[in-house]
Amino acid sequence: MSHSLPTLAPPLCRVRQRRLLDLMSARGIDRVVVVTPEHVQWLTGFRPHRLMSAAVSLDVDGRCVLSAPNTIPGDVAADEMVTFEAQRLATLRQDQPAAAIEALARATGPAGSLRLGVEGSALGPALCRLLGVTDPDRLEDVEADLQRLRRKKESDELAMIRHAVAATEAMYAAAREVIAPGVSELTVFSRLHAAAVEVLGEPPTALGNDFCCGSPGGPPRPRAIEAGELYILDLGPGYRGYHADNCRTFAVNGAPTDVQQQAWEAIVPVLRHVEATVRPGVSCRRLFEDAKRMLDEVRPGGFFHHLGHGIGLYPHEAPHLNPNWDDVFEEGDVFTAEPGLYGDDLRGGIRLEEDYVVTATGVEKLTSFPLEL
Amino acid sequence: MSHSLPTLAPPLCRVRQRRLLDLMSARGIDRVVVVTPEHVQWLTGFRPHRLMSAAVSLDVDGRCVLSAPNTIPGDVAADEMVTFEAQRLATLRQDQPAAAIEALARATGPAGSLRLGVEGSALGPALCRLLGVTDPDRLEDVEADLQRLRRKKESDELAMIRHAVAATEAMYAAAREVIAPGVSELTVFSRLHAAAVEVLGEPPTALGNDFCCGSPGGPPRPRAIEAGELYILDLGPGYRGYHADNCRTFAVNGAPTDVQQQAWEAIVPVLRHVEATVRPGVSCRRLFEDAKRMLDEVRPGGFFHHLGHGIGLYPHEAPHLNPNWDDVFEEGDVFTAEPGLYGDDLRGGIRLEEDYVVTATGVEKLTSFPLEL
Repeated sequence: MSHSLPTLAPPLCRVRQRRLLDLMSARGIDRVVVVTPEHVQWLTGFRPHRLMSAAVSLDVDGRCVLSAPNTIPGDVAADEMVTFEAQRLATLRQDQPAAAIEALARATGPAGSLRLGVEGSALGPALCRLLGVTDPDRLEDVEADLQRLRRKKESDELAMIRHAVAATEAMYAAAREVIAPGVSELTVFSRLHAAAVEVLGEPPTALGNDFCCGSPGGPPRPRAIEAGELYILDLGPGYRGYHADNCRTFAVNGAPTDVQQQAWEAIVPVLRHVEATVRPGVSCRRLFEDAKRMLDEVRPGGFFHHLGHGIGLYPHEAPHLNPNWDDVFEEGDVFTAEPGLYGDDLRGGIRLEEDYVVTATGVEKLTSFPLEL
Repeated sequence: MSHSLPTLAPPLCRVRQRRLLDLMSARGIDRVVVVTPEHVQWLTGFRPHRLMSAAVSLDVDGRCVLSAPNTIPGDVAADEMVTFEAQRLATLRQDQPAAAIEALARATGPAGSLRLGVEGSALGPALCRLLGVTDPDRLEDVEADLQRLRRKKESDELAMIRHAVAATEAMYAAAREVIAPGVSELTVFSRLHAAAVEVLGEPPTALGNDFCCGSPGGPPRPRAIEAGELYILDLGPGYRGYHADNCRTFAVNGAPTDVQQQAWEAIVPVLRHVEATVRPGVSCRRLFEDAKRMLDEVRPGGFFHHLGHGIGLYPHEAPHLNPNWDDVFEEGDVFTAEPGLYGDDLRGGIRLEEDYVVTATGVEKLTSFPLEL
């Protein structure tokens, strides 16, 4: 099976590098150096082991240098690769960030008077020194720019996300089998984890946060779930860093009450409204307000969180379906919509969440598991 | 069960802060600011959610300020706590590091001309600016110092590690049940994960790297394990960031060959030698050389990695039982010893690893699962 696992494609990594190069040209930046694993991966396709460092340099002329732990990786988008000793006789070094930058700087030469773009929250002063930065005031913070450039997903990224979505579908199927009064939340969590491992073909890089029964969310507890409760399973498995994020709600004893069923019937039309409305140019804030109005009509104040968000290498990216931002949908966005209603009489509440990609004319739904309680 | 889960104790966090304060006094450092989750947790007992930021400031007069996401945490060692908005209507912000530092700087005032200690690889230039750093050349890199101070484990940390060790014992018991010819490595991995969840009482924060049968190590694969192979299970579950790390090796069909059994009999005496030899003042390098000599006598070149390492909030800490370092055992060290032998005729090899704490006069073993194949 493993031969068919999706990976990032070097030619599409070059497309992502080109987006950054265009920004560098426009802003007069000579070189960008990144050290966070997400940006190393996004630019080159190389994903460092979670206990290892890496660094990438991209010059405005297009030259990309990757500093990788231990060995030269295959099938990545870089013009030159250097390595550093991440381990010595198998022992991980704690000074890997410096070792990665030292190796990078040997290949690129000192930054000197170059206009250098960096991740403003991540590149510490010791690393700046190793890069040969002479005037920290001339550094350009491109971290938020990189996050914005990550918004549009190329087809290789979409394949990674689809693989993570496939894990959620198997997790819901496992949930239907395991959920019953008296079962521990920890047992449900482990069964869902196992289903994700099986479908992904390897351990997930994330799993999600909400495995708490009779509650809007939270981690699983050593507690038996009860008949009458609703179990919100908001699943966020990660496949090599790329996240799915969707949600189903299950009645523990398979028999929702009338009030639970009525709430469910009020939530589903919000998803249909999203599907009928979203296309490039539509306001995310307006869509949030539509959803809020639809849900407040049924249960005032029962909906108290965002309507959704982009997903990718970070679980919450732009576009934000949230009145605290003012985003507009763009083609290539991959986003979630997750209307919900909560209240003591709902014994936990209901949240239903789908994943979508924005096309030229509307949305394509990435999720297919039935919505029923 | 959850009431009995071990946590870091604020009075012992103050002991850890005191160790840093002594270093600051000796080095003329006025204030240390840390942003990595490990150092925030080690100093205050507050462990930020893996998707959230935090920051801590410690002044040389002892005043500790914690900047925490969303809400003031309970039961932590800090004189003042401030919060920042990590989420807006449940949406995680991608600019949390800056938000955490902004809130911290409002409480502490600008660093100005203070002598400021920071994590040299982690505190980016944007964060330095928010702290009011006027001269980056005056920053002191205390990252390696913090890593060194973390070496001696207080009793609360030892309790966290013991809880993680308990997870490994349950994982080995599960391994004995599930391992059989034809079973997938992914299935073994999931069963061990479930055993860890059950004992920890919550999801682990790590699980380890080696779940690959017939091999010295590596991640689990969608592959059926075979009779005749040895299965090295090097387990590193994390409990709220604190790692266990120990290893057992299982014959897939329960019947090791003579050559496998002979290798096993050469490895066990190395562990006995460690237990008889280690006490404060003993050279880690010398111990490595003893082990290398003992194992080379039986199978020249069959042992090609470190003999062990410290464990804690990072899986590989000092002391290093590795000739690339020159450490000496100290009271309070928590370390592993992991002699092994490998070779094609061993069908994967054998590694046996125990965890120990160094006492005033020797070692106490933290692991108890039988060593047999």
